[in-house]
Amino acid sequence: MRTRAADLDALLVGARGGRALDVGRLLSLVENRSPDVPALMRTLAPLTGHATVVGVTGPPGVGKSTTTSALVTALRARGGTVAVVAVDPSSPFSGGALLGDRVRMAEHATDPGVFIRSVASRGHLGGLAATTPQAIRVLDAVGYDTVVVETVGVGQSEVEVAASADTTLVLVAPGMGDGIQAAKAGILEVADVLVVNKADLDGADATVSELRRALAQRAPGEWDPPVVRTVASAGTGIDDVVDAIDERSAWLRSSGRLGERRAVRARSELRALVADAVLGRIDDRRLADLAEQVASAELDVYAAVTLLLGD
Amino acid sequence: MRTRAADLDALLVGARGGRALDVGRLLSLVENRSPDVPALMRTLAPLTGHATVVGVTGPPGVGKSTTTSALVTALRARGGTVAVVAVDPSSPFSGGALLGDRVRMAEHATDPGVFIRSVASRGHLGGLAATTPQAIRVLDAVGYDTVVVETVGVGQSEVEVAASADTTLVLVAPGMGDGIQAAKAGILEVADVLVVNKADLDGADATVSELRRALAQRAPGEWDPPVVRTVASAGTGIDDVVDAIDERSAWLRSSGRLGERRAVRARSELRALVADAVLGRIDDRRLADLAEQVASAELDVYAAVTLLLGD
Repeated sequence: MRTRAADLDALLVGARGGRALDVGRLLSLVENRSPDVPALMRTLAPLTGHATVVGVTGPPGVGKSTTTSALVTALRARGGTVAVVAVDPSSPFSGGALLGDRVRMAEHATDPGVFIRSVASRGHLGGLAATTPQAIRVLDAVGYDTVVVETVGVGQSEVEVAASADTTLVLVAPGMGDGIQAAKAGILEVADVLVVNKADLDGADATVSELRRALAQRAPGEWDPPVVRTVASAGTGIDDVVDAIDERSAWLRSSGRLGERRAVRARSELRALVADAVLGRIDDRRLADLAEQVASAELDVYAAVTLLLGD
Repeated sequence: MRTRAADLDALLVGARGGRALDVGRLLSLVENRSPDVPALMRTLAPLTGHATVVGVTGPPGVGKSTTTSALVTALRARGGTVAVVAVDPSSPFSGGALLGDRVRMAEHATDPGVFIRSVASRGHLGGLAATTPQAIRVLDAVGYDTVVVETVGVGQSEVEVAASADTTLVLVAPGMGDGIQAAKAGILEVADVLVVNKADLDGADATVSELRRALAQRAPGEWDPPVVRTVASAGTGIDDVVDAIDERSAWLRSSGRLGERRAVRARSELRALVADAVLGRIDDRRLADLAEQVASAELDVYAAVTLLLGD
């Protein structure tokens, strides 16, 4: 259903005035891919560019939600407002699996300077790549000083989304086993700040050394990712994380890399929207027919692509 | 670089004759998105449809590689040949993080009836959605009786890929903590067979009960996913898994659902290839220019999409 232009404006005024309900409604338009999204994006564009966008990612169990919550507390203590977009591996079936984690965020529920939104990560191809930059645009335009995007650090789309922030925190924890080591290795390359959480556990020193070794092997860049130790559940080290984000933000501005980083985000959004637009024009019945023919080997898949593209 | 048609034919003859090197070369063409892929797919199409395609997914640390390896042993004992495509959360930087797990597959290294391939999951939008069905097509056409696709069960693209098999095994393990519970809940809906691995650990009974409860809440379908207990590291219960796969395969054929399931896989491949084709035609320089303008709010993102689509 289409929202009238006057209603969009009213939502935006409400949201910028601090009405969480209206912020939520704007985000719902984006998540539901409402036909109003183009008009909304056009209206919002001139209001954007002020928020610091922070990605938080890492393997399951590393303490992402706890760290995000502690980060929110620390940012609030320094006076800024914060919005969180948490991309959950939930689903229509499970009905929001991370409810337990979201409950930990309850301490911020009555703070008007904090807005928290969980979004399901399921959906069609490239869903996150299109909708997350738009959710960031909404929250930036509404006026939040920091927008935190939290995603699970396993999965192509999810890691890409966190990595498209201005500054990406990669969380790891000591002694999480082989599978986790693997996941960790896969996400090291996107880290702007490495956070060793649960640093009070045995093996924290080894993990820090291991990370420093891995970083040393990384192709040298202009930004050298710091390694910060935290015990997020106790709030320990979180101020160091905020300092690292601030340092990185200052560097992004002084080096002129901020615009570049944001152009990369816009580029991935553009690609996702172009793909969306083209796929949206394909007739579902025709796609189903051709898919059947491909599945039964009556038609080869590239011949079907040519037919769909109408070349 | 383009391979000559005669060379493609020679590779295919070699691969169908059991030369693992040639199978690997065909898969490399697919993974590198070689210009030969359309010709290859056209040649392969009539040779496909015989392999049973099994997806194996589950959270990190649940024992996917160990289970896959045990499954290979059990399938071989029953006389069939097996190919494994393992989608790893590795990266150019980490250089293949799951090497440790791959080493466990070493017992199959000298068996000519087994082929194992690890592929990186990183890459551009929808990469897995396009290349995995093509890798399956290659291995099916080459003549493997079973093709196992193993992916990490966290992440939109990864789960979708495993779920596009004929039969999808979802692995869980007792007592893996909150984050893992969450991941597990997100992947339950795609399970055709649920495997409780590490069933010798405390809490296995509770996990089985919990899964049965969750399954009971699922919208009733025609196929009722069995719950199988395994200790993959000891080979325990793996025969039950193979029985469950056989039962499912028989049901897919008798119910006429096999073609439907494969059409769903072809549909997602078609969508990914159409998106690829359209994005491939976009001029990189122009995309970068427009992305910069979007990032600096000079241009709204949908106006940029319209420009890119040339509408």
